[in-house]
Amino acid sequence: MRYKSYKKEDNISYTFGAFPTIEMMEQIPEHTVEVLIQSKYAEVDDLMDRCRKYNIPGRIDDRSIARVAYKGNIFVVGVFQKYERPVKDEPHIVLVEPSDMGNMGAIIRTMVGFGYRDLAMIGNGVDVFHPKVIRASMGSFFKIRFSHFDTFDDYLERYSDHHIYPFLLDEERSKEPDEIEKKPLFSLVFGNEGAGLPSHFNSIGDPIRLPQTTDVDSLNLTIAAAIGMYCFREQVKR
Amino acid sequence: MRYKSYKKEDNISYTFGAFPTIEMMEQIPEHTVEVLIQSKYAEVDDLMDRCRKYNIPGRIDDRSIARVAYKGNIFVVGVFQKYERPVKDEPHIVLVEPSDMGNMGAIIRTMVGFGYRDLAMIGNGVDVFHPKVIRASMGSFFKIRFSHFDTFDDYLERYSDHHIYPFLLDEERSKEPDEIEKKPLFSLVFGNEGAGLPSHFNSIGDPIRLPQTTDVDSLNLTIAAAIGMYCFREQVKR
Repeated sequence: MRYKSYKKEDNISYTFGAFPTIEMMEQIPEHTVEVLIQSKYAEVDDLMDRCRKYNIPGRIDDRSIARVAYKGNIFVVGVFQKYERPVKDEPHIVLVEPSDMGNMGAIIRTMVGFGYRDLAMIGNGVDVFHPKVIRASMGSFFKIRFSHFDTFDDYLERYSDHHIYPFLLDEERSKEPDEIEKKPLFSLVFGNEGAGLPSHFNSIGDPIRLPQTTDVDSLNLTIAAAIGMYCFREQVKR
Repeated sequence: MRYKSYKKEDNISYTFGAFPTIEMMEQIPEHTVEVLIQSKYAEVDDLMDRCRKYNIPGRIDDRSIARVAYKGNIFVVGVFQKYERPVKDEPHIVLVEPSDMGNMGAIIRTMVGFGYRDLAMIGNGVDVFHPKVIRASMGSFFKIRFSHFDTFDDYLERYSDHHIYPFLLDEERSKEPDEIEKKPLFSLVFGNEGAGLPSHFNSIGDPIRLPQTTDVDSLNLTIAAAIGMYCFREQVKR
């Protein structure tokens, strides 16, 4: 197969770098196609050993790497088939129209760090399978479950038993995380980088605002999501 | 003056983008040299009005922008003289040999968001004046005070009255943020992205560890620093 630079409509995607590639082999061997290694990579033998351990083909292929990598200095590329692994009835992180691939990956990494496994995405957001997301997650992507919903109403209908905590910037009804009752089955809902959550979210569940000065327009999405996850960490099974 | 792409030894630096440039004009008009605007920028008149308000020269200069910008799509560049604004006897964020400019900028933005104003940097780290740091801070850089120390011992000697909280990954003595007594005058100390803090920090002050699963190697530095700042926010004057 002749690999090309990633497109959303492809049914395969890529990991870039040895660490996320090893995560791929460990977590989703059944969906892994193969591992491509640059001939100059210093630890070819070690990586080939790993491939054999998981019974995954590994081979030197500088030209394919040059074609698929979106920047230089990439020595290892993993190829995997896209797969489905829908969210379960556990606490959810819900991202409404997330627009930045690096932030999405960083949020996934933080989710796994705090024991969250379930990511719901609403509406038109970035493609969770994009190699930049996988890369920013440092391979944590392979440890989560994920589902997409066209609208937040679709999500609410399916997960009506989840207590909803929308994170809003300014909202009279909103409370700080320390003041709020934390239910065991919940969804932390974050808007996108530019616009935040639409204002109608103030009538859903228990809106939360993070304490902050008026000196910055807002905390960035990754930071807000991390603090939200930290505040609810006791509610999450590990 | 003929501007060139930024170098650490220069005595000027740059803001990229309208928003950080406006922060520069508002916060450090006395150090601002001028504002360069791309002829295709949609809001030239509004920006020129701002410049007049702060009595700062503004002019169209596509060629200078092309020379100093490290990527395309930059329509506004601010030029400022580097300046000193040393930390005060207030709570400090201390970064030991930080190695990523984007992270440094994101940490500065989060500092300002939670009311922290004082950043101490130890040893060989990234250049806080680099345009990538300023950009990642979204101009929050112009609201902080900052000092550099060659070694952590130099820092300790000068700020012996600060209670030190080093953030460590694994350390028997360390406690989680909720379990620790929070002193009013303190320093939150973070190691760099790759190595964290050297192990001898476990004998300094009250080491803190953030709760996390063993499923990721560590939270990234920006996230760890944000959660640390969040946990100590009540101790910070706004």
